[in-house]
Amino acid sequence: MRWALVGASTIAAQHMIGALRGAGQDLAAVVSTTPTRATDFARAHGIPVASAQLDRVLADPAIEAVYISSTNEKHHGQALAAIAAGKQVLCEKPLALTVSEAAEMVRAARQAGRVFATNHHLRCAGSHRAVRDLIRAGRIGRVLSLRLFHAVHLPPHLQGWRIDNPDAGGGVIPDITVHDADVARFLLGETPVSVVAQMAASGMGQGVEDSAMSVWTMPSGAMVLSHESFTHPFAGSGLEVHGDKGSIFARGVMTQQPVGEIELVTAQGRESVPYSPHNLYAQGISDFLSAVAGQGSPAATGEDGVASLAVALAVREAARTGQRQPVKVPA
Amino acid sequence: MRWALVGASTIAAQHMIGALRGAGQDLAAVVSTTPTRATDFARAHGIPVASAQLDRVLADPAIEAVYISSTNEKHHGQALAAIAAGKQVLCEKPLALTVSEAAEMVRAARQAGRVFATNHHLRCAGSHRAVRDLIRAGRIGRVLSLRLFHAVHLPPHLQGWRIDNPDAGGGVIPDITVHDADVARFLLGETPVSVVAQMAASGMGQGVEDSAMSVWTMPSGAMVLSHESFTHPFAGSGLEVHGDKGSIFARGVMTQQPVGEIELVTAQGRESVPYSPHNLYAQGISDFLSAVAGQGSPAATGEDGVASLAVALAVREAARTGQRQPVKVPA
Repeated sequence: MRWALVGASTIAAQHMIGALRGAGQDLAAVVSTTPTRATDFARAHGIPVASAQLDRVLADPAIEAVYISSTNEKHHGQALAAIAAGKQVLCEKPLALTVSEAAEMVRAARQAGRVFATNHHLRCAGSHRAVRDLIRAGRIGRVLSLRLFHAVHLPPHLQGWRIDNPDAGGGVIPDITVHDADVARFLLGETPVSVVAQMAASGMGQGVEDSAMSVWTMPSGAMVLSHESFTHPFAGSGLEVHGDKGSIFARGVMTQQPVGEIELVTAQGRESVPYSPHNLYAQGISDFLSAVAGQGSPAATGEDGVASLAVALAVREAARTGQRQPVKVPA
Repeated sequence: MRWALVGASTIAAQHMIGALRGAGQDLAAVVSTTPTRATDFARAHGIPVASAQLDRVLADPAIEAVYISSTNEKHHGQALAAIAAGKQVLCEKPLALTVSEAAEMVRAARQAGRVFATNHHLRCAGSHRAVRDLIRAGRIGRVLSLRLFHAVHLPPHLQGWRIDNPDAGGGVIPDITVHDADVARFLLGETPVSVVAQMAASGMGQGVEDSAMSVWTMPSGAMVLSHESFTHPFAGSGLEVHGDKGSIFARGVMTQQPVGEIELVTAQGRESVPYSPHNLYAQGISDFLSAVAGQGSPAATGEDGVASLAVALAVREAARTGQRQPVKVPA
């Protein structure tokens, strides 16, 4: 397919261009609201068209799909425009700044008969898929709890709007908690019903939180704790799933790279768990292309993006108010 | 000194009798409200006097100190009686079922000029002391967060009142969260100002919670997350302290044994941290005896017991109400 990139972003440059081209996709245009940024990006990546005019790019019928990785407040309008123009859409997380906007995007795509996917890369990791497989195979019995550790140090080149611009969707909760929400939903196959949380600005965030800790209750009764931060240089990342028959420890797996170790502990002892070392973004593109071809769903659907956003925004509201928040996912 | 044991408990049998005798202490009597239990316990442990009458034992002027390890609802009355009789008191946690009762015990001891200590054993672990030393020495810089993992599997012989009797102080929050509160206070040298929490009964608790997850905010701005459970057979235990210059990972250290591994991670790499392998309860007795001799404080004072109980009860109230709770520690 022929693609337009909407947003001249770091993630497009570092991950998605390679993943798209690796899947034989044709990158026809890049759109940025800053014209020089579009031009520089197009030149750097060998993309024929650079434009500040999304509508003009969308008017090209040869472009069948768009990948949206602009700042978060732009996703909603850009996605609706792309869907209206008949494109298939892969959108970065968080889908929007509000759940209702995100749900509107999903509805629009459904009505238009287009694939609309959320780029939650962690679902595409071999490590996460292996953990889910262990759970599904009953290796740890009934799931009692999940711990998500995603307190990292935001690299200097990403310390822009993420740490000081609430209007662009800055803050660690829309940036990282939304991923963790998706991980919990992916691994356990259920969406939290309620959350409590605290948040803080611990030296990096200016007007937005740079750290959050929260506790989620799942419909099954399983409990989830989650820690996200931009300010932790040496904490590493990971997740643990504990059941009544075993525990899974996955270390270093909350990352864009196919790395980390998984260990399963049961009454039979400790065992290392192998997993596929494929590129996460390539897997996401592969799943997206299959969905466009009518075979299966994307790794994370639009509905997944809506539900995971609903969890993250409930976390922020819980932290803001001090009150347990229900997670409300639009039908 | 000559001691009376108040409560014919598992912890007295498994840990405290050995620790007291190892420190040259004379165990003169054991008190249990169930006479046969007192008699059996005295015979099993070579204690001369078995009694169901606390007052009669306290009337013996040769008995200078008592160790209280009865069920939690009895601590308050027994401690007040012992203090009124002029004894030095080492009391199990939680000190009482309410913060005000616990504070009353501390006030009474202060007015009587007696040592009143809380048997928070984890403060006595070489591992915990080594972690605190690393923090105090600035090895991890400014503390950003603390994670406490204390989800274990309650052994069958302890699955009595702890899992079904709220009136006796059952439930994982008074049993284990109170320890974790004390660990956080010990390591960071500050007491949480507010908490949010969720709790659950996940198969063991009947009328009391068997699992809890909570998030605490410290006066410094550091954040703490804490997970306690009676139902996790393979989760292990541990704690992590993350700062802006390094992280400490201590695995297997939330236990009565002098075990576990500590790793320090900084820009210089990873290093294993050695610690003293002394018996935790022997250390607690040693510190208590020093305090009685007028040298220093017990490992955990009565005030520590009050503050750590205040945190735990705020956690339970937060979980019950869904609302962030301030931690109120009486002066």
